[in-house]
Amino acid sequence: MPRQERALRTRALLLRSAAECIKEHGYDGASTTEVLRRAGLTRGALYFHFASKEALADAIVEYQIPLLQPVTADCPLQAAIDLTLSYARRLQTDVILQAAVRLATEETSYEPGTRPYLWSQETVGALLQQASRQGELLPHTDPEELAILVVGAFTGIQLLSQLSTGRVDLLHRICVLWRAMLPGIAAPGLLLRLRADEKRAEELEQSAAHASRVLHDVG
Amino acid sequence: MPRQERALRTRALLLRSAAECIKEHGYDGASTTEVLRRAGLTRGALYFHFASKEALADAIVEYQIPLLQPVTADCPLQAAIDLTLSYARRLQTDVILQAAVRLATEETSYEPGTRPYLWSQETVGALLQQASRQGELLPHTDPEELAILVVGAFTGIQLLSQLSTGRVDLLHRICVLWRAMLPGIAAPGLLLRLRADEKRAEELEQSAAHASRVLHDVG
Repeated sequence: MPRQERALRTRALLLRSAAECIKEHGYDGASTTEVLRRAGLTRGALYFHFASKEALADAIVEYQIPLLQPVTADCPLQAAIDLTLSYARRLQTDVILQAAVRLATEETSYEPGTRPYLWSQETVGALLQQASRQGELLPHTDPEELAILVVGAFTGIQLLSQLSTGRVDLLHRICVLWRAMLPGIAAPGLLLRLRADEKRAEELEQSAAHASRVLHDVG
Repeated sequence: MPRQERALRTRALLLRSAAECIKEHGYDGASTTEVLRRAGLTRGALYFHFASKEALADAIVEYQIPLLQPVTADCPLQAAIDLTLSYARRLQTDVILQAAVRLATEETSYEPGTRPYLWSQETVGALLQQASRQGELLPHTDPEELAILVVGAFTGIQLLSQLSTGRVDLLHRICVLWRAMLPGIAAPGLLLRLRADEKRAEELEQSAAHASRVLHDVG
């Protein structure tokens, strides 16, 4: 295996092992000794990639940035819904994302503060602003306030879904949120065309997998 | 001071000191030594009232039960809104409630699980079921699902409000939630009569203070 590829694999392995430890024990309960034991690596390998346990946590928190990138869309309100559905679906199985969420919700000696939430708020906010400009939102709505609401509500809904069902019903709960909110924020003409159902989340996942295969074939 | 009154004051002091420690350091970071130092009490006083640190945490979590009692109301949907407004207002300043919320949201060696959330869900759920029977909700709505949504959304919204503003804008954010949701769940005829604004929260607090003065005068 070429040297660079091996380094990337080692880094990914460290990230995954650290995420498992943090998901189980929280930041303060996770030790680099256990991370290395799980990864089957030496301390030298750790410090080659990450200067400290804090740097590992930073990498875990920042792992979600690509998932929260602004997208352009014909229907930005649907794109905002889709973003929450895709994130929820991924959160059900992706241990690094699960650890990132635990790092963001708990107060520990590691303090990401509002940083991870601001990424979501900015992306959702930009989509809702675009939606507002295109007449997709009711006139009285405030896109910024709605973005803060969506991110806050999502955060708590996923927390309770995790406690109650290990996030099995997370997608359903996020759909309930949108279905309750949409009549109060979306233009009536658009309402029947918007989709906030679990099947939509599945379709999004399939088309993302398809796009990644296409990219792989091209590259 | 009569013996029983002194015992009650000691218990309240222990509860408050423990809440301060847990609010600051979380359950695992809080020590009974610091609780006693803050309270200016001996370990004997602690064990007279609470068998363990876990028992203290139980008392803090259960402190919110009276705030989540079912109420009867002419307009149960407004009563559900009022419950969240009163709880939010109290959460801004009540350190025991703040500690209870931290205990419920963080994974530590103390595990209240979903218990605190079920109290809220049951009370909000009962109000919304009553609202549904009285025709206050739109026909397609599911009171149980809505209760789960309200409790989940509240949980995350308060977490982000705490991180962003130390809960200063919590009431505003809860009003934004209701104003986004009500058109999608409430019967149109009721919509204009429902109140979800910060002034309502103030009025509720004043009338609760008045009621407690009346009870005191009678008693």
